[in-house]
Amino acid sequence: MSLGTSHKRVDAEAKVTGRARYTDDLTMPGMRYAKYVRSPIAHGLVTRIDTEKALQLPGVEAIFTYQDIPSYLFPTAGHAWSLDANKHDVADKQLLTNHVRHHGDGVAIVVACDPLTAEKAAMLVEVEYQELPVMTTAAAALAADAPLLHGGESNLLKQHALQGGDPEAAFAAADILVTGNYYTHVVQHCHLEGVTSYAYMDQMDRIVIVSSTQIPHIVRRVVGQALGLPWSAIRVIKPYIGGGFGNKQDVLEEPMAAFLTWKLGGIPVKVELNREECFLASRTRHSFDISGKMAVDQHGVLQAYSLDVLSNTGGYASHGHSIASAGVNKIAYLYPRLALGYKATTFYSNLPNAGAMRGYGAPQVTFALECMIDEAAAKLGIDPLELRIKNVARQGDTNPLNHKEIKSAGILECLLRGKELFEWDARRSACLNQTGPIRRGVGVACLSYSSNTYPVGVEIASARLLMNQDGTIILHVGATEIGQGSDTVFAQMAAETIGVPFSTLHVNSTQDTDITAFDPGAFASRQSYVTAPAVRQAATELRAKILKQAAYMSSQPEWALDIIDGNVVFSEMPEKVLFSVQDVSMSAHYDQEVGGQLIAEVSCKTRSNPPAFGCTFVDLTVDIPLCKVTINKIINLHDSGQVLNPQLAEGQVHGGMGMGIGWTLFEEMIVDEKTGIVRNNNLLDYKFPTILDLPDLDCEFIETYEPQSAYGHKALGEPPLISPAPAIRNAIWMATGVKIDDLPLTPKALYRHFVQAGLLEPQENNNV
Amino acid sequence: MSLGTSHKRVDAEAKVTGRARYTDDLTMPGMRYAKYVRSPIAHGLVTRIDTEKALQLPGVEAIFTYQDIPSYLFPTAGHAWSLDANKHDVADKQLLTNHVRHHGDGVAIVVACDPLTAEKAAMLVEVEYQELPVMTTAAAALAADAPLLHGGESNLLKQHALQGGDPEAAFAAADILVTGNYYTHVVQHCHLEGVTSYAYMDQMDRIVIVSSTQIPHIVRRVVGQALGLPWSAIRVIKPYIGGGFGNKQDVLEEPMAAFLTWKLGGIPVKVELNREECFLASRTRHSFDISGKMAVDQHGVLQAYSLDVLSNTGGYASHGHSIASAGVNKIAYLYPRLALGYKATTFYSNLPNAGAMRGYGAPQVTFALECMIDEAAAKLGIDPLELRIKNVARQGDTNPLNHKEIKSAGILECLLRGKELFEWDARRSACLNQTGPIRRGVGVACLSYSSNTYPVGVEIASARLLMNQDGTIILHVGATEIGQGSDTVFAQMAAETIGVPFSTLHVNSTQDTDITAFDPGAFASRQSYVTAPAVRQAATELRAKILKQAAYMSSQPEWALDIIDGNVVFSEMPEKVLFSVQDVSMSAHYDQEVGGQLIAEVSCKTRSNPPAFGCTFVDLTVDIPLCKVTINKIINLHDSGQVLNPQLAEGQVHGGMGMGIGWTLFEEMIVDEKTGIVRNNNLLDYKFPTILDLPDLDCEFIETYEPQSAYGHKALGEPPLISPAPAIRNAIWMATGVKIDDLPLTPKALYRHFVQAGLLEPQENNNV
Repeated sequence: MSLGTSHKRVDAEAKVTGRARYTDDLTMPGMRYAKYVRSPIAHGLVTRIDTEKALQLPGVEAIFTYQDIPSYLFPTAGHAWSLDANKHDVADKQLLTNHVRHHGDGVAIVVACDPLTAEKAAMLVEVEYQELPVMTTAAAALAADAPLLHGGESNLLKQHALQGGDPEAAFAAADILVTGNYYTHVVQHCHLEGVTSYAYMDQMDRIVIVSSTQIPHIVRRVVGQALGLPWSAIRVIKPYIGGGFGNKQDVLEEPMAAFLTWKLGGIPVKVELNREECFLASRTRHSFDISGKMAVDQHGVLQAYSLDVLSNTGGYASHGHSIASAGVNKIAYLYPRLALGYKATTFYSNLPNAGAMRGYGAPQVTFALECMIDEAAAKLGIDPLELRIKNVARQGDTNPLNHKEIKSAGILECLLRGKELFEWDARRSACLNQTGPIRRGVGVACLSYSSNTYPVGVEIASARLLMNQDGTIILHVGATEIGQGSDTVFAQMAAETIGVPFSTLHVNSTQDTDITAFDPGAFASRQSYVTAPAVRQAATELRAKILKQAAYMSSQPEWALDIIDGNVVFSEMPEKVLFSVQDVSMSAHYDQEVGGQLIAEVSCKTRSNPPAFGCTFVDLTVDIPLCKVTINKIINLHDSGQVLNPQLAEGQVHGGMGMGIGWTLFEEMIVDEKTGIVRNNNLLDYKFPTILDLPDLDCEFIETYEPQSAYGHKALGEPPLISPAPAIRNAIWMATGVKIDDLPLTPKALYRHFVQAGLLEPQENNNV
Repeated sequence: MSLGTSHKRVDAEAKVTGRARYTDDLTMPGMRYAKYVRSPIAHGLVTRIDTEKALQLPGVEAIFTYQDIPSYLFPTAGHAWSLDANKHDVADKQLLTNHVRHHGDGVAIVVACDPLTAEKAAMLVEVEYQELPVMTTAAAALAADAPLLHGGESNLLKQHALQGGDPEAAFAAADILVTGNYYTHVVQHCHLEGVTSYAYMDQMDRIVIVSSTQIPHIVRRVVGQALGLPWSAIRVIKPYIGGGFGNKQDVLEEPMAAFLTWKLGGIPVKVELNREECFLASRTRHSFDISGKMAVDQHGVLQAYSLDVLSNTGGYASHGHSIASAGVNKIAYLYPRLALGYKATTFYSNLPNAGAMRGYGAPQVTFALECMIDEAAAKLGIDPLELRIKNVARQGDTNPLNHKEIKSAGILECLLRGKELFEWDARRSACLNQTGPIRRGVGVACLSYSSNTYPVGVEIASARLLMNQDGTIILHVGATEIGQGSDTVFAQMAAETIGVPFSTLHVNSTQDTDITAFDPGAFASRQSYVTAPAVRQAATELRAKILKQAAYMSSQPEWALDIIDGNVVFSEMPEKVLFSVQDVSMSAHYDQEVGGQLIAEVSCKTRSNPPAFGCTFVDLTVDIPLCKVTINKIINLHDSGQVLNPQLAEGQVHGGMGMGIGWTLFEEMIVDEKTGIVRNNNLLDYKFPTILDLPDLDCEFIETYEPQSAYGHKALGEPPLISPAPAIRNAIWMATGVKIDDLPLTPKALYRHFVQAGLLEPQENNNV
């Protein structure tokens, strides 16, 4: 059995030894380096730009300003194109701008012989600005007299409302009504490998881009749009990637790299952002302001909830309204018997540009929802775990928004097993009625998450299998391995279906739009779900071809043969080996009369999208005077259907939990509300947690079998990040009695809340 | 119509502007450079080797001697593997040797930080040799007491004899018997791009090789054999190539590059031979000694011929006996009604290693055969053109060796059309009975050449078509473009069959054994013939997929639709356009319910092998005192079936004619018979003809339609080179009365013959 086994990652050794080559390791002879001239202010118009001094610096080859770029406005979101023009992403971006919309917006770019010269020259470009009012909040950006960031009538990007059932009726009839206002803050992805791309031309009319991207095929299309070239004139190659987390689900520097090589006769030009630039000028997580309401009956049956979301997308649309929109789609499976109202508004501001980030709106709305559940439990006077157990999804429930039946639901089992494993009752009892400066609390929160984007987006994926002479098999997938381990599970799937050992599979991890069949990329926790049908179909076809050649070789009918563990055997006498698969492949290659290399390729679409579920249990201690939270125990339980590779699945959960804890307790991009200046655009001042800052991370899987799935599995990539934040918030509430509805829960924030709550005396000169 | 049109080469602009990147343009960061320590003698044993001084040179990283290499003996010939072990190539090569078998044989290799340091260090390696007797001729190598080059019982590599009909009976009954002894000399390929490879490791157990090779899939296998690794542990990538002509149909420096990176922790190591090393240590054309016999009846009907060939393969087997063996297989179609006897012997010597070179034995045996035809004509007292017209192949004739029917034969038409075009009768009349120092002559010679290697070798090829969103189509083939233009005709074939404009096809010219389906490579003039069925089948499948999606889009049955010039139309109302192919591809990609990227891939085998035919007419002037030949007019006529791209076909013929003239009149690798030392291993002393040395090259095609061929075409790559040599020899005979049976016909050689014939007085101090 290949599936369900913790096979070692196919790229493990290459990555830890440094043999795996990332974009930056693929420098080309003659490469030039580009560096942006960036705005030091968050909003304004360029009134003068002078490149003369910079051009005189030896080693500078060219400088382009906003005056030198194509006029095309292009979108940057990593969404597959839609045949419905109403679904197209907002095209509001140009390569450079004279209307700077956030701190670090690009007004010019220098190309030089080396990165340092480029950086020095960028500093010599003189730019003067007319400053404009800076808007960082919804109130400022949506004010009647707000200056417009992208024309139109207001800074409102998009708004929509939807509902399932009749929430207003439920609110009107409610025994208990819970309301709350929740705020989630801005963080950055902080992937290990930065944003980096280079481009060159190997033909007159075709541009090759090598980039650390999650979405090579989408990059191809968007660069075509940005430069006004046919999409196929662009070739995008994706080497190994050191993390993306959604930031690289945006088209970032690829259009600029392509533009520069195009203008400079095809020489290789690299555009690499340093960490400071990644903070300012790649993407961030959207900050949400959420007003929530929930109706509960006196028996603890949840009746309805509504969420009204204000999503701050910063200076450009990027994924724009999709984040706020997706959030509710992903959580609507969790308490499906409730009526549900949702209203979302996305607006432009002078914050750095927000985009996709692991969870894609779900962490924000789940925070509000799972805070409200604890509010409701408090009002009912019951255990919040029991309230969840009573109300979470069961198999056979129907999603209130899309009316799809939930065919596998393990969230109840997650909660029940978590209750036992975590010893919820004992821990909870130990936390009741505490006093003193150091107090303990427990919390729980749930999540649901769909397995791809259908039917919002098209779900298309691909797999190709080539059998080498020696019986090993090369697997190509359109899906991009970005660190999550997808290549490994795809190899397991193929091995399982063909009937060969996992070790005989080799995955080509490079996607190349001229070679690899179309796939929109790594996002929406879609890859293992939507690529599996392509792998299964291709593997089935390859298996049939192996049997056909074996039938020729053995003069047996194909139905009499089977493939087990790399050998062709008699179906009805499997201990009788006729040939090894290698023998068959040698015949297919070298028999002079019959055969051909054994190859199978499939590009196909997926039209189902089942939800994964999960929850977090946390036990923590709050040192009130130090405003410090110590997690004593944290455990995530997940229903992601069948677990394909337990060790990799655990790795995903650990990473997600760490990221969730970071979002909650450590990280915050501090943007000055008045000036829009980012105060901590570096990893010294931005308190990204290290392994030493994190507790032991426990997890367990409740395996269901999703019948619509090629191998019974569902999404897992993003879910683990979602539930820690509300669980931690709920535990702090329990520990301290302080109910905090805005993230983050850093010491600085806790200090403010503890002082407000009277738990602490305000300190003087505290520099908060 | 895409086929039959002179479309511009798909790689033309990239190549002439320098945007096309060749192996040497793809240097990697951290690359190291290797240089051989080569034997200054042609035969001996290393008695002492001392690397100490060399290792002390700063920048030297490692030195490997023959003591440090794997013990595996490996073959180097670019032949597909055979399931029949009797057909395996001779494995007699090691990475380095202590028994040096030719001038320039490698005994050690230095790896350093740059090429100059490596070269300097190589000179510091101290080597002492015990010299052994040097054998450069058949007589020496096959003498009873000859020292053995590769053990065994003698230096004979292989010998075989075959016959068709009863040549001995024919000789016994002949009215006229012609005999002759012919000799062909050693030349080198002199491709523009040298021999260069580099290798690196991107995983623990896999080696990547980038190489200027005609045969990436074969290189993969042989490197596996050379290093004792699984074949699939080797990945070979072939970028653009600047010529190969058969030299790169041998596995050259790839095993060494792979060995070095493997030993040095996976760092990139380049092994590049300079021009001098290419002459000494890549491959050369085999020199043949041929004894021929021919029987003719008094009516000018050829009855039989026999050839007894001694083929000198030099220090290693390389393609070994295949060259001598292939020679007769390729020419046996030319005069198929004759009985034919053939005996061939290949032997080792201390010449540089001979291997594959354009023509693959056919130029040598054709020289003997076509000299004998003129002998026979002279004995009969008839026009040698008339003798050929009477005896060459007709459609419906049967090859005497393989008993296959010739289904298309245009050689008679080639001769008849040449007779008219060249004004043979008038020119010939003008050349009769000349005297004086400057004399004119005309000559003619024929050729036949098969279109691949079947059934000697397996013929397998592949094609993959991917349709981009914008309706353009990417074509991948296993066949390697090495300058011959194959990519362009494959694009034409695909466009023709799918029904789209040629301009919508884009060929990915890089073969990569981890990506590109299996194909043995560029050789045997096979590519356009054996790849065509794969392209046609893949294009047919893609076309069907386009129509299927179009049928879904239009609610029409597939049979009602057709594709014409990039549009889907009604079959019975082709002026009515339903969609563009681009529309269909957009739907296939982005319709949310139905589709998938439109892709088709085929790997298939070819089991037919029809002959191409051709001939050369030449009119030349011999300046006897200057020993100088001036070609007044030369024309090649070819039956290669349908001409797929007239301009590219002409280019092939021009190149082949130039190479044939170079072989005949200019080029010779001068190897000292006693010492085996190569005297002219550089392009200053080796008189390679430039464009200024060549006459206008005329050609014309007689188009037949080969019914076994996917597009009616047959081989063209090698044939144009074959017939110039005997035509020139026959013309010089006619002009001067001097019948020269040994090549080359350089001024130095002509001087010797003219003195022997009494046409010139011997000069003193002539240094000949």
